[in-house]
Amino acid sequence: MNAAEVRLSCRRGELAGPTAGLARGHAQANLVVLPRESAYDFLLFCLRNPRPCPVLEVTDAGSPEPRELAPGADLRTDLPRYRVFRRGDLVDEPASIEGYWRDDLVSFLLGCSFTFEAALLAAGIPVRHLELGSNVPMYTTREACRPAGPFVAPLVVSMRPLRPAQAIAAVEITSRFPRSHGAPVHLGDPEALGIADLARPDFGDAVPIADGEIPVFWACGVTTQLAVAAARPEIAITHAPGCMFVADAVD
Amino acid sequence: MNAAEVRLSCRRGELAGPTAGLARGHAQANLVVLPRESAYDFLLFCLRNPRPCPVLEVTDAGSPEPRELAPGADLRTDLPRYRVFRRGDLVDEPASIEGYWRDDLVSFLLGCSFTFEAALLAAGIPVRHLELGSNVPMYTTREACRPAGPFVAPLVVSMRPLRPAQAIAAVEITSRFPRSHGAPVHLGDPEALGIADLARPDFGDAVPIADGEIPVFWACGVTTQLAVAAARPEIAITHAPGCMFVADAVD
Repeated sequence: MNAAEVRLSCRRGELAGPTAGLARGHAQANLVVLPRESAYDFLLFCLRNPRPCPVLEVTDAGSPEPRELAPGADLRTDLPRYRVFRRGDLVDEPASIEGYWRDDLVSFLLGCSFTFEAALLAAGIPVRHLELGSNVPMYTTREACRPAGPFVAPLVVSMRPLRPAQAIAAVEITSRFPRSHGAPVHLGDPEALGIADLARPDFGDAVPIADGEIPVFWACGVTTQLAVAAARPEIAITHAPGCMFVADAVD
Repeated sequence: MNAAEVRLSCRRGELAGPTAGLARGHAQANLVVLPRESAYDFLLFCLRNPRPCPVLEVTDAGSPEPRELAPGADLRTDLPRYRVFRRGDLVDEPASIEGYWRDDLVSFLLGCSFTFEAALLAAGIPVRHLELGSNVPMYTTREACRPAGPFVAPLVVSMRPLRPAQAIAAVEITSRFPRSHGAPVHLGDPEALGIADLARPDFGDAVPIADGEIPVFWACGVTTQLAVAAARPEIAITHAPGCMFVADAVD
């Protein structure tokens, strides 16, 4: 399936699961939908924390069309599944958000690690959680993001174990993808980030670290979700975990 | 003078002229101050047009302190001179904007071409208007920026004549400075941008183009000023031409 076919499949209700590996070569994006009155502070939060929150596109209020990433697409129907939050509480996980749509809703599309992971794989650098078929391990750090209005969050990082030479190549490669979290934020000692135990991630699944490997940490988009949860906006809609927006734009 | 001394000199009313060449090695920035109600659309305009409008920092509403670029500085007094616009009309050119300050004003600091020009000079690439001691020639193009709410503008470009090998090196160098307009947007035929006559710039001063040189065009911060003029916000305050904010942050 190409990107448009993935979106059509979501729109028809045929695809309701994760998008990893679909429409290879096309960028996938996190979705955050907020009322216009919360949009400025959220945009400022993203701008002040570009590593965890790389903004790919912001739609006009009321428009569900991401004109830059996929002209003609409809963000209300073209993802496999959504999560709807009222004042921070999860209230629904629908396959379409047409029933929730309002003229004051603004959609943010944010870069996702799939892009840089594809580049790592293409360079022959193994990605442990992909080898294991599990979710990437993610950790809440003690580093605070720069706040913006009610949007506050600690930096959340994802971790991939690599040998030192692989880690160096991974820095070179991922630094070329600033819209996909960019270069790592740390490598080596997890304690420096306030992570007590790599075997107990805050999100996702633990992965083994082999002898001679070091943990390498990238800023993670889950940071955004914690910021939205902290702000408790009247309504917020996101993609369901792993159920991303598949763009026409290429990686 | 270092950056803090330049700012103090402005604050004391001793420096009221252009900042070009002062506190070498420190980033200089364009200033745009808008009411909070216009700030979201303006931030979105900048985000949608990052080449002409690279955002370095956005202050919290009411705070005149650019905490990232120069902690402790005061944007109300620390520039040599300002321009105050009411509904798009120039109404004052004061040396301080303390009398205009309000709790709902948001300050945007935007990257400026001084940073990449310093990098060009350091690499031995001549910059014609600096050799001549004149202002860079700027042209309104027929390319439209992506609009955001009431902020609409054509792309404005600045032009520097270079020999082809210099132009190639200039692309390599300036592409490393995305927060200072980044790589050129065009080189060669001015007609491709809708520029009829290079000898008649829309802003700044014309410069001679020698045999064997081609014009090289970069996105220009004046784009922002046209967008603000088009939006006609209730109040807008900018730096006076050439009278930039000098940051602690280095180029």
